[in-house]
Amino acid sequence: MKFSNRVGSMQASPVRKLVPFANAAKKEGVKVYHLNIGQPDIKTPDGFMNAIRAFDQDVLKYADSVGSDELVEAMINYYKEYDIHFEPGELLITNGGSEALLFCMLSLCDDGDNILVPEPFYTNYNGFATCVDVKIKPITTKAENGFHLPSKEEILSRVDDKTRAILLSNPGNPTGAVYTREEMEMLAEVAIEKNLWIIADEVYREFVYDGLKYTSFGNLENVQDRVIIVDSVSKRYSACGARIGSLASKNKDFIAQVLKLCQGRLCVPTLEMIGAAELYRTPKSYLAEVNAEYCKRRDVLYNEIMKIDGLVCEKPTGAFYIEAKLPVENAEDFVIFMLNEFRHNGATTMATPSEGFYATPGLGRDEVRLAYILKEEDLKAAAECLKLGLEAYKAKGNK
Amino acid sequence: MKFSNRVGSMQASPVRKLVPFANAAKKEGVKVYHLNIGQPDIKTPDGFMNAIRAFDQDVLKYADSVGSDELVEAMINYYKEYDIHFEPGELLITNGGSEALLFCMLSLCDDGDNILVPEPFYTNYNGFATCVDVKIKPITTKAENGFHLPSKEEILSRVDDKTRAILLSNPGNPTGAVYTREEMEMLAEVAIEKNLWIIADEVYREFVYDGLKYTSFGNLENVQDRVIIVDSVSKRYSACGARIGSLASKNKDFIAQVLKLCQGRLCVPTLEMIGAAELYRTPKSYLAEVNAEYCKRRDVLYNEIMKIDGLVCEKPTGAFYIEAKLPVENAEDFVIFMLNEFRHNGATTMATPSEGFYATPGLGRDEVRLAYILKEEDLKAAAECLKLGLEAYKAKGNK
Repeated sequence: MKFSNRVGSMQASPVRKLVPFANAAKKEGVKVYHLNIGQPDIKTPDGFMNAIRAFDQDVLKYADSVGSDELVEAMINYYKEYDIHFEPGELLITNGGSEALLFCMLSLCDDGDNILVPEPFYTNYNGFATCVDVKIKPITTKAENGFHLPSKEEILSRVDDKTRAILLSNPGNPTGAVYTREEMEMLAEVAIEKNLWIIADEVYREFVYDGLKYTSFGNLENVQDRVIIVDSVSKRYSACGARIGSLASKNKDFIAQVLKLCQGRLCVPTLEMIGAAELYRTPKSYLAEVNAEYCKRRDVLYNEIMKIDGLVCEKPTGAFYIEAKLPVENAEDFVIFMLNEFRHNGATTMATPSEGFYATPGLGRDEVRLAYILKEEDLKAAAECLKLGLEAYKAKGNK
Repeated sequence: MKFSNRVGSMQASPVRKLVPFANAAKKEGVKVYHLNIGQPDIKTPDGFMNAIRAFDQDVLKYADSVGSDELVEAMINYYKEYDIHFEPGELLITNGGSEALLFCMLSLCDDGDNILVPEPFYTNYNGFATCVDVKIKPITTKAENGFHLPSKEEILSRVDDKTRAILLSNPGNPTGAVYTREEMEMLAEVAIEKNLWIIADEVYREFVYDGLKYTSFGNLENVQDRVIIVDSVSKRYSACGARIGSLASKNKDFIAQVLKLCQGRLCVPTLEMIGAAELYRTPKSYLAEVNAEYCKRRDVLYNEIMKIDGLVCEKPTGAFYIEAKLPVENAEDFVIFMLNEFRHNGATTMATPSEGFYATPGLGRDEVRLAYILKEEDLKAAAECLKLGLEAYKAKGNK
C-alpha cells in the first residue's frame, strides 16, 4: 500500500526517537536523568483541577469552535498585563500551540510556499511544514554568539517570491535566546518590506532572566496587521497534558480564515478550557516563583557544563533550554553511547541531539539541547554524568 | 495580506453558518427546535467525570503520542465484542474523529490526489480535504433509494490514477443509511482491484435499528491490510466535548506513518483519555438503552415528517439523522425563512440545508438534514413547525 510523500518525508521526532534506548537502560535499573524533554516537574496550579472537578453538567457538549467565552476573556485579561490589547473575535483557542502552528501554515501557505525560521528551531516546526508541503527556509544562528540573529541584509537575502512568513519562538526553543527589541524591530522591518506575516511563538514569554525586558511582537505597533501570536498553557503553567493553546491577531481577516479550520475540527475539549481559564487567572506570584526557580536551575546547569572541556555555549537568558556545542563529531552517537553504555553511580544522562533542530544539512551534528527541568541536585548529577561520559566516550577512541 | 488558496476555498460550515439567524430569533424570545446539529441530549455516563475527578497527580504531564495504554486497552476490549481484534500498536488516539480523518488524508494523499466518498457526506470531509489539497470524488446516492450505493461498475468508473482511498461513514451522516454486507463486500472488491485504502468512519456503529445486523469493515478479512477504522466517543457516549477519537488498522506501516503526525502534535489531553477509558468500559446496557431511545425518536420524527406533502425520504436505519428532500427549490432559503419569519406557538425549527453535504454542484439544494436528538414531544412540535412553515413558505409564492 502506498503512503503520501509528504508524511513519508517527515523525520521521526528527534526528541522522541531515542526513547527506546532510554527505556532499555531503565529496564536494567539505570537511573536516567532526562534533560531531553521539556516536561517541567513544577506543580500545576491547583485551580486547574479544582475548576474541572466542579463541572456538573449532565451532558458534555461540543464547545464553540472559537473556544469558550470564559477562557478567551481570561486570556484577554492576561495579555493586558503585557500591554497587549485583544478583543473577543481576535483570539481562537486551539489544541495546544501545535495546532495553532499547523493552522498558521495552512491558512498562510499553499503547496511549495516557504517560511523563514531562525535555526536551530523547535523541531516540530519542520514536521508541521513538511506534512502540509510548506518549506522551512532557515536563518542560521550560532552558539558562539548566543544564537542571536544575523544582519538584516542576510535575512532579506533569504526571502524569495514564495516566502509568506517569518516564524520564530521567543524566548527560543532550543536556544534559550531572547531577542532584543532591536532584533524584533529589524524583523518587523523585514516583514513590512517583504510583505510577510510574523508568527510569534511566545509560549516561553514568562521565562526571561537576568532582569531582561521582554518585548512581544504584540508590543510593536507598526506590524499589528501582520502579527500572529501563538501561545500555550503547557510550559507557563506546567500543564503540558492539557493541550490548550491559542492564536491571537488583530488581523480579523486572518481570524476568519482560521475559523474555517477550527470549525473543521469542531472544538477543543470543554473541560480543559474550564481548567485553562483558571490557569490564566493564576496570581502573578506563581509565575514569579517559577521564574526564580528556573533561573536558579539555569545557573546550576550552566555552571556545571562549563566545566566540560571544549563545550561551547553562551549563557542563555530565556526558556528552559541550553543549546550547547559538544567536543564530539556526532552528538547522536554520543547520546546513544550514554544510554547504552555509560553509567556513573548507576545513572546516566539523556540529552537531545540537535541535528533535527536545523534545516541546513550537516549543521547541529555536534550540538545537544539540555532542558533544565530537574531539581538542583539532579541537574548537578546529570551534568557530572555528561562530563564523565564525554571523557569515557573520547577514551574509547570516538571523535 | 495574502492567505492560502486552500483555506480560502474552504466553505463555511453548512451546519454552523446559519447559527447567527438562530441566535437572532432566540433574542426575540423565539424557541428554536435545533434539528440542525448532532449534539445529543443523552446524559454522558457518570464514569467519565468520576474518573477525571479522581485524578490526583501534581503535574499534568504530556501523555504518550500514541495515547494512554489504559485507553488503548479499553478500546481493544470494546472492539472484541464486535469480533474485531486489535493489538496495542494498531490503535492511535486522536483529537476527536476529526483529527483521525485529517491524519488519514495527510498520510495517504499528496497534493492533487483524490478520495472517493459517497455523497451526501459529512461536510467536514470536504473541509479537511480542501485544506490539505485533496479532492473529494463523489459517488452520488439518492433519497429515493435510501442513499444506498450505486453499482460496482459505476463506482469503478469514478476511480482514476490519483484515487487513493474510499472514505465513508457507516451508518451514514447525514443519510442514516446502513450499508448491507453485500455493499461492503462490493466496496472491498473495488478497493482490492484498484489498490485503494478504505477509511471507515464508524462512529455511529451502535446506532443501527430494526434488528439490522451491522457489518464493520473490521469484519471483512480480505481487506484488513487496507482498512482504517475511525472512531470517536462523541456520539456513542454523548461526550462530544471530550474530543477523543481514534484510528485503528492492522496495517502497521500505516500506523508508523501516522505516528509521525501524532508526535508532531505531541499528545491528546491526559484527562480526557482517563475519562474516555471509563466510557469504553460502560456496560452494554447503556448502549442498548440509548439505541432504543434513538430508535423511538426516529420513528416519531419520521412518522411526523411523512405527513408533509411532497417530502421524499426512505426510512433511515442508522445514526440519528434523516436526510429528506423537501418540496422547495432552495432549502437554505427555506431554513432562513423559518428562522427569520416563521413562528408557531412562539417557536420555529432549524434544519441543516444539505447542499454543503454534496460535492457535485447543484445537488442537495432541495434537501435538509434533520437530527432526531430531541425528546419525543419536542420532535413532534418541531415537525409540526416544519409542516406549517412549508405551507407558509409556499403561500408566500416561494417555489
